[in-house]
Amino acid sequence: MSAIDLNADLGEGFGRWRLTDDEQLLSVVTSANVACGFHAGDAPTMRRVCELAAARGVTIGAQVSYRDLAGFGRRAMEVPPAELAAEVAYQIGALGVFARAAGARVAYVKPHGALYNRVVRDEEQAGAVVDGVLLAGGALPVLGLPGSRLLELAAKAGLPAVPEAFADRAYTDEGTLVPRGREGAVVTDPEAVVARSVDLARSGTVVSHSGARIGVRARSLCLHGDTPGAVELARRVRRRLETAGVRVEAFV
Amino acid sequence: MSAIDLNADLGEGFGRWRLTDDEQLLSVVTSANVACGFHAGDAPTMRRVCELAAARGVTIGAQVSYRDLAGFGRRAMEVPPAELAAEVAYQIGALGVFARAAGARVAYVKPHGALYNRVVRDEEQAGAVVDGVLLAGGALPVLGLPGSRLLELAAKAGLPAVPEAFADRAYTDEGTLVPRGREGAVVTDPEAVVARSVDLARSGTVVSHSGARIGVRARSLCLHGDTPGAVELARRVRRRLETAGVRVEAFV
Amino acid sequence: MSAIDLNADLGEGFGRWRLTDDEQLLSVVTSANVACGFHAGDAPTMRRVCELAAARGVTIGAQVSYRDLAGFGRRAMEVPPAELAAEVAYQIGALGVFARAAGARVAYVKPHGALYNRVVRDEEQAGAVVDGVLLAGGALPVLGLPGSRLLELAAKAGLPAVPEAFADRAYTDEGTLVPRGREGAVVTDPEAVVARSVDLARSGTVVSHSGARIGVRARSLCLHGDTPGAVELARRVRRRLETAGVRVEAFV
Amino acid sequence: MSAIDLNADLGEGFGRWRLTDDEQLLSVVTSANVACGFHAGDAPTMRRVCELAAARGVTIGAQVSYRDLAGFGRRAMEVPPAELAAEVAYQIGALGVFARAAGARVAYVKPHGALYNRVVRDEEQAGAVVDGVLLAGGALPVLGLPGSRLLELAAKAGLPAVPEAFADRAYTDEGTLVPRGREGAVVTDPEAVVARSVDLARSGTVVSHSGARIGVRARSLCLHGDTPGAVELARRVRRRLETAGVRVEAFV
Repeated sequence: MSAIDLNADLGEGFGRWRLTDDEQLLSVVTSANVACGFHAGDAPTMRRVCELAAARGVTIGAQVSYRDLAGFGRRAMEVPPAELAAEVAYQIGALGVFARAAGARVAYVKPHGALYNRVVRDEEQAGAVVDGVLLAGGALPVLGLPGSRLLELAAKAGLPAVPEAFADRAYTDEGTLVPRGREGAVVTDPEAVVARSVDLARSGTVVSHSGARIGVRARSLCLHGDTPGAVELARRVRRRLETAGVRVEAFV
Repeated sequence: MSAIDLNADLGEGFGRWRLTDDEQLLSVVTSANVACGFHAGDAPTMRRVCELAAARGVTIGAQVSYRDLAGFGRRAMEVPPAELAAEVAYQIGALGVFARAAGARVAYVKPHGALYNRVVRDEEQAGAVVDGVLLAGGALPVLGLPGSRLLELAAKAGLPAVPEAFADRAYTDEGTLVPRGREGAVVTDPEAVVARSVDLARSGTVVSHSGARIGVRARSLCLHGDTPGAVELARRVRRRLETAGVRVEAFV
Repeated sequence: MSAIDLNADLGEGFGRWRLTDDEQLLSVVTSANVACGFHAGDAPTMRRVCELAAARGVTIGAQVSYRDLAGFGRRAMEVPPAELAAEVAYQIGALGVFARAAGARVAYVKPHGALYNRVVRDEEQAGAVVDGVLLAGGALPVLGLPGSRLLELAAKAGLPAVPEAFADRAYTDEGTLVPRGREGAVVTDPEAVVARSVDLARSGTVVSHSGARIGVRARSLCLHGDTPGAVELARRVRRRLETAGVRVEAFV
Repeated sequence: MSAIDLNADLGEGFGRWRLTDDEQLLSVVTSANVACGFHAGDAPTMRRVCELAAARGVTIGAQVSYRDLAGFGRRAMEVPPAELAAEVAYQIGALGVFARAAGARVAYVKPHGALYNRVVRDEEQAGAVVDGVLLAGGALPVLGLPGSRLLELAAKAGLPAVPEAFADRAYTDEGTLVPRGREGAVVTDPEAVVARSVDLARSGTVVSHSGARIGVRARSLCLHGDTPGAVELARRVRRRLETAGVRVEAFV
């Protein structure tokens, strides 16, 4: 019997602004990527999300980002590696306080937005993220795209490298994501998303953009929480996975 | 034989900007109040200061502040207590990562600037700072003004409350600081600062603004690091204390 | 026949976050208080709101604030007057560029949040806001609470001082607002808000918290845009005012 | 008789931090690139630099940057063009208020740091900067590297495109700057800098890295203000230019 983790970005408000329905999403996911203040996530929100997650047994991860509130961490930045490593560690440390206060701990790290995309191929920045995780201590697992430089370098550094997949994104025949903006890049039909989730979790495969069935290695599925209907779709995915005999559980 | 700690604010630059001569000051003080990013202190600087402090056996403290880079944390703010507590914990957590990576730990907390002044009398904000320290865990000592609400509430909460004195500030007969801006509020003659340091450390007394000798309870002396000649003055203070038979050592 | 202006806060998102339904509100109000980047309001949003406002003939005002994104400008700050004046001017200048590009201009200034409340009584900060408006040039009208220090000092400085009222806030017998947090401080019944709007606009009176009819001088009514049902309520207010023979028009 | 402008970056502090000796530099240069708050430059500093510049007849330019205080605008960012254009206009508008209050005006625009380097080749971002300048109105001249996309697109848009040169940077035979980090990229001998300044101003030539005399078109020379000895070097350059019969005057 196969097992899969469900992760989602949480706590992505800032001050007066809210984005994600943290309370509802925490009743569905098994891993919470908590924003740490650099692209979103103020301190009181981080505290509250950690308390809710701990109360529900949801694993807490640090969703680290470029320092870019105005761009929500979606603008790639040329941050010198030593700065980036320190900034990653800073975010993990800040979140750690709230996780521990809630009786839990930061159990993994996942880059956000432009940083996530950048470390798929950028050796230097991927290395800086790994350095930041090492600096923060505890040999935390790193969550990212299978085949990415990030996961490669994490594994090389002795950190558990956890691959994730996206049920609502189209894949090329090579197993990479069809870039956003290309036709059909995002799968919008809820039923298709649900079916793809089950395929990914049970057989480690998905039907590519061209119609071929390809293998996609994933220990976690990333669910999106900031779109209308997101929570309902997440619930359907989880129910269907359970019905299909998949064990939905955190990877750590 | 009496003992005294010497503390100073360090790492108070941000990005391109530098303020304090961290390397030199770390050769004099026994406790480093490290800026944590809210009024000053970027991640790479925090990392570097922690490494230098740890290498020299200087105790690391979190210098927590209002979130106010533009005002250097010197503008009092009406932050709701729950927000303030979370922001204090956030800063302690962020610094903790760098202290631990350097083989040390955050060993105490000291509020900065307007927050420091505010918690002398403001019950609500003093309580929020204490809550933030408790949230961060480890029952960290709190460094502040003797007689302040902050130290009172810290003690009540079971946290070590460490009083500090200022050799370069004039005192009233009641043992409070003469407010900056009043004539003679700041002692500028280096020799006077040195002599007052010895008095404070050895006999727990100082000559007040009116000329009376008053008692001032202090386990630490705060040295200023951002003025010309600051490092040289700090060195003289330390040498004279040692010559006078005072043990210069961290309070923790 | 009496005339009244309807103003609302607009453009109060930041980057990824949205708060106000700018497009809908601009079809109702006659004056738009546009956030200028210090409590909310990124540059692209400011541009867009100015374009929409200009296209609809809605007057553009600069909604100036303390520099406090994390607190949405709702935390009072002790900003030295010269700094505050310069920060107010900075915000007016930044908005001016987008107003002019849209073929309009910044036609008035209104403080936001904690600054709005502070300048009701604080002579120093009220003076600083007036200095900021003077610095920005063009002798812009200032919108605020009748009887406030802000309007007094604005008038003294030769700036048009425009009083506003709140149809959804309870008033004391002295004509001041019942502080939020006190029972009945906010009028939540839509029909009551509508009726009070008509009273305020037509007779310059409102029924106070104690039941007395009191005079409230107002050339503008402030509508709130960030609550559910806000736009619909705003529309009802406007329709009823027009039905009652009140001319709904900007004050400038 | 030839004419040359001397420009330098000014007002590059933030809050408590200072970087440039604004007062001294303003006694040497003819054009002041004033930081506008995105990489440096708080509102009170912007005001003061504008007042000093206006009092000395120094032309005021907006030194626009990516929004990146922590990186001092030196980290390239993938900012979508519409956002970048709006952010450029925002900065010009904010500075405009202080220039006008001082009886002057913003007379040109120069990108800072990573943005400056980026728009040498990046069509999209160069176009966005030009759009921002157009949005700000007044058909302001744009100061940049000769041959850059920025100057090309500015000229195409009808904006005066003003080329500048660097007397303290080595040039390739093709007239481009030898990248920092390469040996000899920066000319550190003061006498050499002075002599190159005269060559650039009088004959529009400079000796390249390889020893060839090449043509470099420049209406302005950029002087650096943030290094020790910067002011003294700037004074020498200016004196020598005047002695050599070059008219030192702003380009606008």
